[in-house]
Parts: sequence; C-alpha cells; structure tokens
Amino acid sequence: MQEKLAIPTDLPGVLLQPLEIIPTPGGDVLHMLKSDYALAPAPGPFGEIYFSEIYPGSVKAWKRHHLQTQRFAVPVGMIKIVLFDDRENSPGRGNLLELELGRPEHYNLLLIPPMIWYGFMCASAGPAIICNYADMPHRRDEAGRLPSDSSIIPFSWPPL
Amino acid sequence: MQEKLAIPTDLPGVLLQPLEIIPTPGGDVLHMLKSDYALAPAPGPFGEIYFSEIYPGSVKAWKRHHLQTQRFAVPVGMIKIVLFDDRENSPGRGNLLELELGRPEHYNLLLIPPMIWYGFMCASAGPAIICNYADMPHRRDEAGRLPSDSSIIPFSWPPL
Repeated sequence: MQEKLAIPTDLPGVLLQPLEIIPTPGGDVLHMLKSDYALAPAPGPFGEIYFSEIYPGSVKAWKRHHLQTQRFAVPVGMIKIVLFDDRENSPGRGNLLELELGRPEHYNLLLIPPMIWYGFMCASAGPAIICNYADMPHRRDEAGRLPSDSSIIPFSWPPL
Repeated sequence: MQEKLAIPTDLPGVLLQPLEIIPTPGGDVLHMLKSDYALAPAPGPFGEIYFSEIYPGSVKAWKRHHLQTQRFAVPVGMIKIVLFDDRENSPGRGNLLELELGRPEHYNLLLIPPMIWYGFMCASAGPAIICNYADMPHRRDEAGRLPSDSSIIPFSWPPL
C-alpha cells in the first residue's frame, strides 16, 4: 500500500493532497478520503460531512474555526479559495495562500486546521460543490466570521 | 439534539433518511452525514469516501458488496437507483426497490447493506454525482458484479 503524500504550504498545517481520478465507463470515480491517504481522518468519533454549493459570481468569506479541522474536495466545478494565517506565534503569520480546487488539474484535498481564515468564490461557469469532512460536529460557538471586505485580511475579492 | 429518523423499505436493512438543505446566500448547504442522524456511521476505523459521476444516458449496474456498507447521497443531478434482494433467508428475498435520489424532492441518504444488488442510471439532463461513504476501504475481492442485462435481476434498464 503506497501512502499518498501530502504537500505542505507556506501556512504551517495547511496541506494539499493530489487525489486520484479513475476513468470509468459512464462517468469517472473520484477519490476523496481513504485510509492510505496521508490526510485520512484519524480514527475516532465521527464529525460530519456536508456539501457547500457556490454559484458563479458568489463569494463565501471569511470564516475560521477554533476547534474543527476541515477537509475540502471539489468534485464539481472550480473554486478559488484564499487562506490567511493570523495565528499568534505561527511562523507563517501574515502569509496568504490562493489556490484553485477542482477537476481535472486541481483535484486535490485541502486540509485546513483550526484558526486559519478562509473564504472562497466560484471560479467555474456553472455552480461548484465543495464536500467537507469535518472532524467534529457543527457548533455555532466555535467559529468566527469577518465580512468579505474586512481590512484585517490583505485580500480583495473581485467586485461581484 | 433531535435524531433524524431513518425510513425502512421492503428490503430489510435498506434505509432512507431525509437530509436537510439549508439555504445560504451564494449557494445551499447540504447535509450528508452527522452524528445525530440515525444513519451516521458507527464510531470505528475509517473506510473511504469517493464520488461516482454518472453521465446522462449511462447505466452502472449491477454490483453487490459482500462486506461493505454503502451510504449514498446525490448533491448534484438526479439518479434512478434500483436495488434487489437476493439474500438467502431474507424475508425480503425477491423484492425490488426503485428510487430516485437528488435535489430537491429526493435529497435522501440511502443506506445499502452488504449482499444487496444495486445499479443506477442518470435521471437528469446533466451529469449526476453520488457521494459514497463506505464503511471499509475498497477491496476488489469483496464485491460481485452482473451485466446490466442479467436475467437474475427482474428489471430492465431502458435502452441507451
């Protein structure tokens, strides 16, 4: 069993993992999480899985979780996602990361640890779908939000 | 915490669970699995999560797993899925179940226990995506297949 390696980024703890696309008659099979992927969830209590749809011309930003770790894959459409490290004592503090996620060339799993700000917009002609495996169930009190035009994060979303 | 109930079918162990769709600016949030859903996975070792795309006019049939339990949700497009109970000693032996899965009216989780035959076709104008949470990693030796026109299963897929 060959472990699928994770790719580090300038934001410590933010990791990317290329995912396999298996061509199949009638439609592709797309991996998301497997026990032999480095970014597979740790054995333990189940969190939740949900989808977030994002329409062309829409932005969902900014959010950060205090406790929950996110694992994003985008099986449909393309998103642009921006991450910002504002963690005290992080060697990556002040770093910003801009990524695309989607098939075929950016079909990667993105792991977002707690306390990283993130936001995303649709970068495809049709709606995009994010599938998120969260490592703990939703709790309203463990996430923070900022408006998409917040001056705290050095990134401007294109006007909609 | 209100548990989301599961709906039984004529195939013992095959269960359906209505899933929540949460309207959100920019695109809906769609539940798939949560610890307060009756069909949440049991705590334990992680299996795998993958997507299966199915193009309009395509059929993927028939398959049954000997050990693995499937949990299907369809966040994009619509599928018609057919299940057949050929389990020895099952009180549902010989029963066939035809379902649609997809938004908005059939946005349900479908749990398929081992030894149930299943097959599906795309029932939407564009491609459909199934997300499957499998309770054990893929093993080629634990699944059986039949051709889509097999006489063992009393169902005929429409000609393509």
